[in-house]
This record gives sequence, C-alpha cells and structure tokens, in this order.
Amino acid sequence: MHHVDLNCDMGEGFGVYRTGPDSELMKYITSANIACGFHAGDAATIRRTVKLALAHGVAIGAHPGLPDLAGFGRREMAITPEEAYELTIYQLGAVYAFAKSEGGSVAHVKPHGALYNMAAKSRPLADAIAEAVYKVEPSLLLFGLAGSELIRAGDAIGLHTVNEVFADRSYEADGSLTPRGTEGAVIADPALAAGQALQMIKDGEVRTRQQSGYILKADTVCVHGDTPGAASHVRQLRAALEAEGITVRKAGR
Amino acid sequence: MHHVDLNCDMGEGFGVYRTGPDSELMKYITSANIACGFHAGDAATIRRTVKLALAHGVAIGAHPGLPDLAGFGRREMAITPEEAYELTIYQLGAVYAFAKSEGGSVAHVKPHGALYNMAAKSRPLADAIAEAVYKVEPSLLLFGLAGSELIRAGDAIGLHTVNEVFADRSYEADGSLTPRGTEGAVIADPALAAGQALQMIKDGEVRTRQQSGYILKADTVCVHGDTPGAASHVRQLRAALEAEGITVRKAGR
Amino acid sequence: MHHVDLNCDMGEGFGVYRTGPDSELMKYITSANIACGFHAGDAATIRRTVKLALAHGVAIGAHPGLPDLAGFGRREMAITPEEAYELTIYQLGAVYAFAKSEGGSVAHVKPHGALYNMAAKSRPLADAIAEAVYKVEPSLLLFGLAGSELIRAGDAIGLHTVNEVFADRSYEADGSLTPRGTEGAVIADPALAAGQALQMIKDGEVRTRQQSGYILKADTVCVHGDTPGAASHVRQLRAALEAEGITVRKAGR
Amino acid sequence: MHHVDLNCDMGEGFGVYRTGPDSELMKYITSANIACGFHAGDAATIRRTVKLALAHGVAIGAHPGLPDLAGFGRREMAITPEEAYELTIYQLGAVYAFAKSEGGSVAHVKPHGALYNMAAKSRPLADAIAEAVYKVEPSLLLFGLAGSELIRAGDAIGLHTVNEVFADRSYEADGSLTPRGTEGAVIADPALAAGQALQMIKDGEVRTRQQSGYILKADTVCVHGDTPGAASHVRQLRAALEAEGITVRKAGR
Repeated sequence: MHHVDLNCDMGEGFGVYRTGPDSELMKYITSANIACGFHAGDAATIRRTVKLALAHGVAIGAHPGLPDLAGFGRREMAITPEEAYELTIYQLGAVYAFAKSEGGSVAHVKPHGALYNMAAKSRPLADAIAEAVYKVEPSLLLFGLAGSELIRAGDAIGLHTVNEVFADRSYEADGSLTPRGTEGAVIADPALAAGQALQMIKDGEVRTRQQSGYILKADTVCVHGDTPGAASHVRQLRAALEAEGITVRKAGR
Repeated sequence: MHHVDLNCDMGEGFGVYRTGPDSELMKYITSANIACGFHAGDAATIRRTVKLALAHGVAIGAHPGLPDLAGFGRREMAITPEEAYELTIYQLGAVYAFAKSEGGSVAHVKPHGALYNMAAKSRPLADAIAEAVYKVEPSLLLFGLAGSELIRAGDAIGLHTVNEVFADRSYEADGSLTPRGTEGAVIADPALAAGQALQMIKDGEVRTRQQSGYILKADTVCVHGDTPGAASHVRQLRAALEAEGITVRKAGR
Repeated sequence: MHHVDLNCDMGEGFGVYRTGPDSELMKYITSANIACGFHAGDAATIRRTVKLALAHGVAIGAHPGLPDLAGFGRREMAITPEEAYELTIYQLGAVYAFAKSEGGSVAHVKPHGALYNMAAKSRPLADAIAEAVYKVEPSLLLFGLAGSELIRAGDAIGLHTVNEVFADRSYEADGSLTPRGTEGAVIADPALAAGQALQMIKDGEVRTRQQSGYILKADTVCVHGDTPGAASHVRQLRAALEAEGITVRKAGR
Repeated sequence: MHHVDLNCDMGEGFGVYRTGPDSELMKYITSANIACGFHAGDAATIRRTVKLALAHGVAIGAHPGLPDLAGFGRREMAITPEEAYELTIYQLGAVYAFAKSEGGSVAHVKPHGALYNMAAKSRPLADAIAEAVYKVEPSLLLFGLAGSELIRAGDAIGLHTVNEVFADRSYEADGSLTPRGTEGAVIADPALAAGQALQMIKDGEVRTRQQSGYILKADTVCVHGDTPGAASHVRQLRAALEAEGITVRKAGR
C-alpha cells in the first residue's frame, strides 16, 4: 500500500496583505508550511494560520526563509552556514510558540524559496539548517527536495527526513527542478501533473526533461496555493491519487 | 533574610551594531532580558546573548518590544490587545528556541520600553501580554513595574509575577516613574541609588518625588547597561546590597 | 463654475503583494497619492505607479506614512515633530527621484493614515510636515483634511494647500471624520456619497452626524481604491459630479 | 600638478546605533558617501550627516546599498538589473531631498558593499545603476572601483565617472581587491598605505600581490571610518599626500 503527504505553503500574507485561499486549501492538504515573518508572514498571520491548520487536522510546519520581504525570499543571498543556522532557529521558534499556545505542536520544518534551493545544493548550508532543527527538537521532521543535500544532512544528524517531489514541475537529469522560465518547466495540465506524481509515488522514479529516469523517494508532494484555481487543482490531485489507491496522510514515522 | 534579583536589558545590538558591555555585566546580574528582534536584537545577537547568559548562570528572559527598530521600541504605538498578544508570542518563541537549542530554557518575560510602560497602565494590554506568556508556558515568570497593571494581569491569570523596582529613577506619588526630562528623574549618585534600592527591598516602600511614601514589593531591581561605567555601577550596587545582608539571586518561586 | 480634484491612494502593494485596481482607477482620478515605502510601497511599486500616473496624465503625489508596514501606517505612533519632518523628507525624496527619472515631477504631498490624522489635530506635527515639504520644494501642493491643522500649517509657511473632503464618510460637528466603527461612519450608497460631495463642492458645507452644518472648502475629493467595485464607484462619482456641471481637474494654482 | 579626492562612508548608524567618528573625519575628507536607509542609515541619520557635510564643505554623495540591514549590505543578493535600477533611484532620492532641504545638493553616487562589488564585475548591474543615476540627474558623478565595469557603464551612458582606489588594501593582478581574509589583504601600516596611494596617484599604477603592475586611474582614495584610530589615519594620509605636492580636493569636472 502506498501513501503520501500533500504539503502546501501557507500564511504567506503580511499585515493587510493576503494571499492564497488558505482556508479552502486546508481541506485537501495534510501538511502546512507556515511562513515565519522573514520572507512573508507576521505574528497575526502565523497565529491565524496555525489555528486554521489545527482546525483542519493539518500538520503544522515552520517555513523559514531569507530575510527578504521585498523579494519574497526568492533571491539568493550569500549567507554563511552560521547565519542559516540562526535564522532557522529564530523562525522555527516563532511558529513553535504559536503552535504551543494554541494547544498544538510543530511537526516539520521546510526551508522556503532561495533558502530551499541553496540547501538542496550546498552541504554546509544543509548541515547548518539540519543542526538548527535538531537542536531545537530532534523529533521534528525535515522536508527537503528528494535526494538533495538537505535530505542527506538531515539523515546524517539523525532527523527523520521527508523527501519532497513536485507534481507540476519538470525534472532535470540530476534530480533538480527545471528552472522556471525554461520551456516545459511547469506542467500546467492537471492530468499530466497527477500522472507524474503517481509515477513518483508508485515507481520511485520520474522521467526527466532529458528523457532519462531519475530514482527518488516521494514522501510528500508539494502543491501550490498561489495560482488561480489552486484549491481546485489540489482537490483534483488528491482525488486522482486516492483513485489509484494511494492513501493521503501526514508525513511521519 | 532579604533577597533580590538584579536584571538588565541585554543583546540590544542589531547586525553590525553593538551596544553595552554585555559580557562584563553578566558577572553581576542574575537575570538577562534579551531583545527579540523587533525593537533591537537579531538571530545572531540573541544566540550570542543566550550563550553568554548560560555561561554565567544568569536567568534567560525574553524582552519583547514594539516593532520599531528605528525608535528602539521607545515610541508608543496604538496597538490592540490582540496585536500585543501576538507580538509577545512571536518574540518569546524566538528566544525560547535559542535557549532550548543551547540546552537552557527561558525563565521570564519582561516587556520593553513603550510596551512596558503601556502595559503598566492599560489593563487590556497587560491582560493580553500575560495571556500570551501563560499560553506559551504557564511556569514562566512575568516581570513588570511593581504594583502596575501588568503585575495585576499576571497574578490574575495565574503567572508567578516579579515586581520590578528602579534604583536610579525617581518615583511619583502614584508609583509610576518620574518621566525622563523632569528635574530629578534620574538618580545619578550611585550611593543614593543604592540607598533607594535598600529602602525598597527592606522596607517595601519608596520615598516619592512628592515626599510621600509609596508601598511596593521589590522582587527585582532593574540596572542599566547602556550608560558609561554601567558595569562598574552594577558591581557597586550589588556590593552595597550584599554588604547590607541582602542575598542577590534569581527571581523565582 | 465649480471644479474639483479627485485623488486616490495608489501603489499600496509591497514586493509580491498587490492591492487595488490601480490601472483602472487611474482613468477616473486626477491626483494619485503614491505610497513611499514606509507603510506600503517599495521601489518597484513606486516606479510602476509613477509610470502609470504619467501615462494617464494624473498628478503624482508623495503619500508618506509612519514606518509601520505590518500596520499599514494606521496605528498612531508617538513620533516627535522632528521625526515627522525627517520621515516626510525621506519619503518625498524617493517619489521625487522616480518622478524625475521618468520625465515627470511631484505635484503634491498628502500624509497617509495615522500620520494624516495626527497632522490634522497636532499643530507641531502639522508644522513639521509642512516645513519638510516647503524645504524640499516650495511649489509643492500640500493636501490635508479640510480646515485642519495641516491646512493651517501649510498656509502659514506659504505652501499652496488643498482642502480634502470625503464623499463616503460622515462628518462630526467639529469637522473631523466620524471614526470608523461608529454607526453611519461610512456612506455606502453611491448616490448619497455623490450628494454629499456635491453639497460640499457647491455650497462649501457638509451636514454633520449631529445635523449641524460645517463650513469647509472642497478642493479635492478622496476616493478609495481598496474596496470591492472601487473603480466603478469612482467612475460613477465622477459622472455624477460632471452631470452637475462640475469640472474635474487637477488641484493647483 | 596632481590632485585627488578623499572619500569616506558616513552616516552608517541606524536609530539609536552610532558608528564612526563622523564629525572628526569630516575635517580631513572631501567627499562623504551617505548611507541611504537600506544597509544602514535612516532619515534622522541622513539629515544629520548631510548637515555635517555641508558645515565642513564636504561633497555629499548617496551611498545606496542592498536591502539588508542585518547584514550591513555586505552579503551578495541575486538581484536583477531592474531591481538594482530601482533601489538606486529610491535611495538616491532620499539623500537628494535632504541635501535640497538643507540648501545643498548631491554631488555623487557610490554603491555600497556587496552592491559595489557586484557592480564592479557585472556589466548588466553596472549599466542599471549608471542609468538610474543618469535618469535622476545626468550631472551627478559616479564613483566606482578604478577600471571596473561600473566605471565603463558610467562612461558609456555619459556620466562623469570617478575612479576609486584603496590605499590600505592589496590588489590582485586583475585589478580587483584582494579578498579580506587573504594574507596581506589589508595594509595596516599607515606609511605603506600612504606609499601605495602616492604611487597610484602619481604613476597611475599599483603593485599587485602577484608583484605585477596594474595600470589604473586614481581620482579618489577611499578611506575607512570604522576602524580604531580612523580619524588619525585619515589625517596622516592627507598630510602625507599634501607633503608630496598633491592637492586634496573634491572630485569633479
């Protein structure tokens, strides 16, 4: 029997700014990655999102990002491993306290945007992030790009790691995502996206843009909440997976 | 036998900016109030200060402030109680995670600057802050101006409260501090300051600017770290208290 | 012959966050108040909005606010007149440079949110803002609440002041706006709002919530861009005014 | 007859934080690069520094940096040329308005820290910054690393460019500065630093770490204000240059 987690970035507003149909999306996902106030999110938004996740039985995750609200954490910054360690602890702590204050707890950590991409490739940054998570709470799950340095770093320190795959993104031969902007980087057709997810979950493999097969583990599928029709797409993906006998449930031991 | 805690604001730098002789002051105080990143402090500074406190056996406190780095949290802002609740949880969480990651724990919370002053007078703000602390961890101590609304709010919700007094500040007849800028607001002579502290600790009373007596509890004395000769003044105050048979030790049950 | 300016707050997004149908609204207004990066707006947003205003022949205004992105500049802060002076110059400069770089120029300054309200009542803050505007460029127009301290301060220093009125807000007997939250504070019916605007422009008077008449000058009408159907409401208001023979044109000498 | 400008970064504090002996340094330099609020500086600091420069007859420059106060603008960020264009205009505008409001004017622009280094190597970023300066005011001087892409970009668009050299930093064979951290990167001995400056000014050449000669123009020498004894070092450097018959004067046509 196959099973998989569905995770989505949540709470990405700031102050008066709102984004994404969070309350609608919560119905279909099993893990929420909550922005922590650096690339998006603020205290009120985190609290609201934590409560929403608890109300829907969705796992709460901290989603730390680079300190770049204007760039939404998508611009790479030359931070040191020590700085990566520190900003992970700071942001994790903020979500940790909101979860605790609402009677819940943080289940996982997933870096955001450029920090996620940098940690997928740089082992020193990956080690720093994994250590930060471990030092705060060794039972936390660490989400990272399937097969990336971040997964290896988490495994090495003794964290339970969760390999993340993308249904609607094309893969390169080395297992990295095809950069946005490249022809075919985004798989817009929901049926094709569901098909790619199914193959990854069932076969542990994805067909790359170069037509090679790349072996990966698919513990969680990332779904996007900030596109038009996002909630409907996620609902369809979940239905397609369940129709194929895959249990959609929270990541974990 | 009398005893008292000595607390000081710590970690008030930001990025490349440093303030105060923190490592020197840690030798003489028993509780450190660590800036959390809103009015001062950042992830690296919090971590460094948490480690310093642990190395000196000083109690770690979160020192949440208004989101006003340019104004150092000293400018009153018309925040709602809900906003006060949220910014307290967020900032407390950050210090909480650093303390945990270093093998320590947060002992207390003390609001900073304008937030401290507003919470001393406004019961709704005081209730919100007390509830935030309680919801994160009911065993945390809440520091507030002796006899203020914040102390009453903490007592009401079931927190252990710590009445704070000032050795080097003049008091008004209603127990508030004489506003800076008023003649005689600051007691510059260390001997006079120590004398006022002694009277408050031993007699539970302070002589106000209006020459009336104001009854208060003196659980902790606030010392200032950002004036020239700060470490020397604190050392002298501690010695003066100990010479009078007062035990200087961490606040707590 | 009567004439009036229609002004609207514009460029109130930040980073990836967008607000309001700015490009639609530009068709109907004559003055745009552009957020300058403190309460909203960033460099890219200012540039985009300046270009949009120039393309539509709409007057460019700087819309300085309090340094409070999380609160959208709506929370009063206890700033000094000196700080008000400085934050006005800083923010005005930013819009000034974008206007110049695009071949245009800044026509007016209108404080935002809590800064607007504080400057309406506090003469020292009003004087500081007026002086800031004057020192940067004495030919700039200063927008303020009709009959407020800000108008008086602008007149006193020699600026050309522009009295602003609100079509869709109820007035108190003293000429201040009925606080939001009070019953009847907002006039939701477009026809009633247009009627109030017409009375103010033609008769120089508004009927207050207390049923008294308040004498005011109506040089510019503020329209709101952040409500559902905003562009349609503005279009209707403009049509209603023009149908009564009022020329809608930029404020100025 | 040789002449040279001496420039120094100024106004690098923020809020309550102060750095460097600015008022002392102003006595010996001819150009001040004033932080604009992104990597350092705020409205009050800019104003104070502009007034200080005017009082000393020192040329006012805008010193735009990356939006990274925590990192002091020293961490490279993957910004686009368009973002570089926009952040230059925004920051230049702020200093422009303060200079104008105090009866002065901005003379030059010099990017700060990581932005300076990135613009030295990346022609697209250099072009964007040069265009931003040109579009705001074509008579402004553009300071850049001698012989760098930024100088080429400024020349190409028609700005008057000012080649900057460093007295106390070692050069690599390609004309770049030896990275800090490398043995011998910093020339601590004031006499050696003065000697290097003299050679660059008189001979238009510097001896590199690889013992090759690198041809460069030395229009302005950068002096550092944030090291112990900074003012004294600058005074000595100026005296050493003048003793060799070099006129120290503002850069310009």
